This record gives sequence, C-alpha cells and structure tokens, in this order.
Amino acid sequence: MSKFIVIEGLEGAGKSSAVAYVTDWLKANGIADIECTREPGGTPLAERMRAIVKEPHDEQLTIEAELLLMYAARVQLVANRIKPALARGAWVVGDRHNLSSQAYQGGGRGIAAELIDGIKQAVLGDFKPDLTLYLDIDPALGLARARHRGELDRIEQEQLPFFERTRERYLSLAATDASIRVIDASLSPELVKAAIETELERSLCIPG
Amino acid sequence: MSKFIVIEGLEGAGKSSAVAYVTDWLKANGIADIECTREPGGTPLAERMRAIVKEPHDEQLTIEAELLLMYAARVQLVANRIKPALARGAWVVGDRHNLSSQAYQGGGRGIAAELIDGIKQAVLGDFKPDLTLYLDIDPALGLARARHRGELDRIEQEQLPFFERTRERYLSLAATDASIRVIDASLSPELVKAAIETELERSLCIPG
Repeated sequence: MSKFIVIEGLEGAGKSSAVAYVTDWLKANGIADIECTREPGGTPLAERMRAIVKEPHDEQLTIEAELLLMYAARVQLVANRIKPALARGAWVVGDRHNLSSQAYQGGGRGIAAELIDGIKQAVLGDFKPDLTLYLDIDPALGLARARHRGELDRIEQEQLPFFERTRERYLSLAATDASIRVIDASLSPELVKAAIETELERSLCIPG
Repeated sequence: MSKFIVIEGLEGAGKSSAVAYVTDWLKANGIADIECTREPGGTPLAERMRAIVKEPHDEQLTIEAELLLMYAARVQLVANRIKPALARGAWVVGDRHNLSSQAYQGGGRGIAAELIDGIKQAVLGDFKPDLTLYLDIDPALGLARARHRGELDRIEQEQLPFFERTRERYLSLAATDASIRVIDASLSPELVKAAIETELERSLCIPG
C-alpha cells in the first residue's frame, strides 16, 4: 500500500538531501512510482501562492494571510497531486506539509494552535502523512548553511528567536505524535542518511 | 466619525455605479477624505490573490482554496488599507466585503456557514462594515448585463443555479442583520440612485 512520507525541518536542515535519500531507499526497495512534492507549492496555482509567501515585498504580509495562503496552497496540492498519486498507488515524498504550519505559523509567528488546527481540520479533514521525518538542527547552524546556499527568502530572513520558537514547536509536536520521527541533522550527511534509512526500515512495511 | 460602507451584489447588479453614487453623496455631504476599495484585491498582494481567484485556469481551484484566498486578500486589505484609512478619519467605500464570502462561498459553493464564520472571526475578529447596501437583482438579468459588459471571469462563468443560491443567501443574511439594506437593482439607474441616497440619509449620521 502506497504511503505519504514527509520531510520536515528548519532552513538548512538538509531537507532536499533527505528527500533524495528517501526516494533512493524506496527505489532500492522496489517502489517505482514515486511522486515528490514541495510546500508551499507543487501545483501551478500553489506555486503562485508560494511566490506571494516567499518573495520579500514592500507590503507587509500579515501573519493571518500567510497562514491562509499556506493552507490554500496545501489544499491545492493535496487535492490535485497527493491524493491522485496515492490513489493510483504511487508513494509520495513531501518536502514539508502540515507540520510546517504548526511549527512556523504556530510556534514561530505565535498564532494559536487551536486556530491552525481548526483550519486544517476544516479544509483537509483527517488527511495526514503516514510518516514524518523531522530533521532537527540548531537554528544558528541551519541558517548559516542556508545563507551559504544563497539568497534568503522572506521567511528565511526572520531573526534567530523566530526559528528557535519554530524548532521548539517542532520538537514538542514530535514528542506527542508517534508518526513524527526526529533525526539529528547536525550529524554528517552519511550519518543522517543512515538514520533516515533506519527509520524507514522501522516504520514502513514494504511489500517484498 | 468615519464609517465603512460596503456595496454588495451579484455580477451585473450595478456595484460600480453604486460606489460612485455613494462617493458623490458623501462628497456632497462634506466628506472630503474617501477611500474606495474592491474585493478581492485592493493592495498589491491582495490583487495577486484576486488574479488567482478570478482568472480561468487549467488547474481546478478547490472551493476551500478559493475561500482561504478570499480571506487572505481580505485580511491584507483590512490591515493595510481599510483600518489605516478609518484611523486617519477617512470614510471607506468598499466594492464587496465579508458578505460576499458568506453568499458566494457559503450559498453558492455550499461551504458550511460555521466554517466561513469561524475563519472570519479568527482572522478579522469583530471588524465589520457600518452599513452594507446589497443590490438585489435576478441572476439571469444580472448575468445578461455582465455578459454585455465583456469577458466573464472564472466565477462569473458559473451556471445560473450557483447565482440563485448566492442571491438566496444574500437575502437571508440581509433579513437578519439590520446593517444590511436591500436595494432593488432591477429598477432604472435613477431610481437605484435615489434608493441608495435615501438609505444613506436614513442610516448615516453625517456631522453637519
């Protein structure tokens, strides 16, 4: 049975590499039909919403509008790509999903968790990933890596305390949800890869 | 004291003319600082959200994403234009506001009123117009007028029953909210103008 696996974490935690590790592992385990998504974005309309959220603007984007745009983009992605992919038997590997809104808009921005969960439930119901791998990293280290990578987007330009609150929320949500596994992303790429593969082996039942 | 006046109604009901009548009436009554807005839109970011909602696309825009985009645009407009205008003492005349979401997304699309009201309350709190003039028109007549005007946008391309449900919701909401006044928009422009002016005189206390 196909599953929806999500990679989560702060800027510079190594999400893109992790998506590649997961995809390679799935292929090595006989899964040929794999769909990779990123959030916000992943459909033409969701990518337009992503641009509004990520580009720096002269106009202040309110935290409420940011939250609503994240969910508008997510609904498009789930309805038009993730659910159809799962329905045809493909496995889906997502670079971010709902946990990002809980951590960034909830923890980072300080929007009430009840409000975020209420919108989530209203527009996506009980839909959720089968497995989430949260790449945990010290925000200072992650941001240094992200800066090294190039230009920072509107959200990446936030100050350190924003990312510290976001990380704290990631960790507290992971502590209460068995489908969220924490990976130490401060380790070497080889060790992160090994940790991810170990979690995949533990968590997924791949048909032989 | 400055007020927020909103014009509502179906496509082809004559909202643009009504905005002009209201503006002229306010000026004639000594109000010099008037800000006109339209929804969705009215700020650079909200106009980008408007484009996503209004343009026809190959990708299906889900009704949930449409609703979330409407509120994201509304939050931007309220935070960055309407509230600042009211705060400096300007009167604001809006072409559409929250009632449109209740009528179109609630009545037309069939999204639960509790969900719409929940999002409204969460992101805008108790903020609401002082006076709403709802221009009531038979959808068939309104759509004929709108078609005569030119190209129809994505929402205007809906079928008649959608607009009938929307009109029904407009009327039932107006029946239970004294701040919403119904104007018969099937009358001649002169009579509509007179009806609007009568409502403004009745409803607004203009400092002499």
